[in-house]
Amino acid sequence: MSNLHDHDATTLIAAVDLGGTNIRAALCDANGHILKRTRQLTRPAEGAEAVLNRIAESVHAVLPAGGAVRGVGVASPGPINPYSGVVLYAANLFWKDVPLRDSLGQRLRLPVRVGNDANLAALGEQRFGAGRGHANIVFVTLSTGVGCGVILNNQLVLGARGLATEAGHMTVNVDGPPIISGVPGAFEGYVAGPGIAKMAQARVRATTGSPTSAKLLGLAGGDITQISAKNVGEAAQQGDALALEIVREVARITGLGFVNLLHLFDPEIVVVGGSVTLMGDVLLDAIRENMRHYAMAPYKDVPLVLAALGDDCGLLGAAALFADVDQRLDEPKLL
Amino acid sequence: MSNLHDHDATTLIAAVDLGGTNIRAALCDANGHILKRTRQLTRPAEGAEAVLNRIAESVHAVLPAGGAVRGVGVASPGPINPYSGVVLYAANLFWKDVPLRDSLGQRLRLPVRVGNDANLAALGEQRFGAGRGHANIVFVTLSTGVGCGVILNNQLVLGARGLATEAGHMTVNVDGPPIISGVPGAFEGYVAGPGIAKMAQARVRATTGSPTSAKLLGLAGGDITQISAKNVGEAAQQGDALALEIVREVARITGLGFVNLLHLFDPEIVVVGGSVTLMGDVLLDAIRENMRHYAMAPYKDVPLVLAALGDDCGLLGAAALFADVDQRLDEPKLL
Repeated sequence: MSNLHDHDATTLIAAVDLGGTNIRAALCDANGHILKRTRQLTRPAEGAEAVLNRIAESVHAVLPAGGAVRGVGVASPGPINPYSGVVLYAANLFWKDVPLRDSLGQRLRLPVRVGNDANLAALGEQRFGAGRGHANIVFVTLSTGVGCGVILNNQLVLGARGLATEAGHMTVNVDGPPIISGVPGAFEGYVAGPGIAKMAQARVRATTGSPTSAKLLGLAGGDITQISAKNVGEAAQQGDALALEIVREVARITGLGFVNLLHLFDPEIVVVGGSVTLMGDVLLDAIRENMRHYAMAPYKDVPLVLAALGDDCGLLGAAALFADVDQRLDEPKLL
Repeated sequence: MSNLHDHDATTLIAAVDLGGTNIRAALCDANGHILKRTRQLTRPAEGAEAVLNRIAESVHAVLPAGGAVRGVGVASPGPINPYSGVVLYAANLFWKDVPLRDSLGQRLRLPVRVGNDANLAALGEQRFGAGRGHANIVFVTLSTGVGCGVILNNQLVLGARGLATEAGHMTVNVDGPPIISGVPGAFEGYVAGPGIAKMAQARVRATTGSPTSAKLLGLAGGDITQISAKNVGEAAQQGDALALEIVREVARITGLGFVNLLHLFDPEIVVVGGSVTLMGDVLLDAIRENMRHYAMAPYKDVPLVLAALGDDCGLLGAAALFADVDQRLDEPKLL
């Protein structure tokens, strides 16, 4: 929280990170500094109108005296059409076809731009975080799901409906199980937290009684069904052989998926975030090794780095929508 | 071949399609009409200088009286950096790090822009062919290999080095064999001609003696090792059960790969070309069915259409480099 008097009103931006649990809002400058912030519960069960009113309240709470900002950037969960500003659906909000941008614009009488939270996290990391200085980045978050955003030539890759870069749904095994939205062998099914937990549970089941499974089982309180990705990371960091084997397999598939993204998007750098990366170098170094091994020659040295903005990536990505104007997001439709 | 007098000099463009066998050149207008064309053998064994001289000769042969054109667009095989104009390597030309753009510019004293042949085929189809009217298309060619180009927001997706959209190298089976550049289960290994032939040969071997293999074997002159993708298409069109089973499996993997491209690039349309598509609707309809089945809801109606420009897609894509100026390709480096 720094001094508001240093900032001309026209450089200030209001940013909102809308989640299923919390609505976070901040006043930012065009350099990605957060000057003021607020948070309240989302309470999605009360319906979209109530949530929209709470978002407007949160924005008012961070607006500077006089209220002058360039605009309000909003990071929203779920597939969202950033051209029309409509959230197609968001399971954790119980939303379907909610005109987020226009509903907020009417309430706030300010310019509003919206984006998918993974895309805006990517934009935040590229403008203000670990991807700073690179015009071309791939950002992936490995958490309870897989999120992805790509910036090429300093612009978000959006596609016709603004839904592009859905890397979690990328099949990496055409003969794999249809866990994610019916797509066989989808990337998310292997490398997000639930997929890692499921793999670990299956391996412990297959080795029950052997000494290698004792560590993992112990961390989960003796209940195989409670073994989590976090447990796998902890056991691997302690040198547990079975956990290390699981991490190596997760890293192989993650690395191959990232190599797909290298070959398809040709970034200068890959930025990775999310709770799964808390496993640390035991996972990250193994992913790097696979990327180097499988990538075509021009990509062997593309760095894989950790996200830098933490929980603020969505807020700062939302602010970036007004920090560097992307006119496409105000157009009613594409060319 | 129409009347040159109808065209103002400033709308004319020289285009070159450089291949391992032929150098093709044409004079085009900005609407993608070919006004004059020429062809000569490439003779790559004579070395890069000789080939570059022949390209310049071919361009001179199509230049209008007075020589005034907007510029010379060149489609080249192999990975190529379109920002620097350097062909990184091209196996069928025996080239490595050849500064195609600058070498031709010196010879011709005209503005030259270059691009990878698959990217420029995509651009040609988008500007003048089956993708016309769409700002966002995915183009895939299924032939002896897999080529891919993507246009989003009316611009080629190039990436940092201009090497993006290398869909043939996309792993679609992390446990598959490392046939293509060491990448396990690469898309190209399953859906390009050699992969289809290999699958057919294996299935015929496994069913030798059964009536279903007789048709395929007959088309290949009785030699299992000579069974080609073309034979598979012919036998399938004649209703052969084994061939139809092979086509269905190829279509399943092709469809899943295309669904990856839908989820990653969010196009309005997918355009597919190349010799494998000569199999016709028996293949294409099965691919469409898989795309509809596996794509997320917003993509279920994305059309899959055949390429329209045939052998001229490279020439017309090269012409498109000057038909709608993409300034990135003249910049020494990205922002």
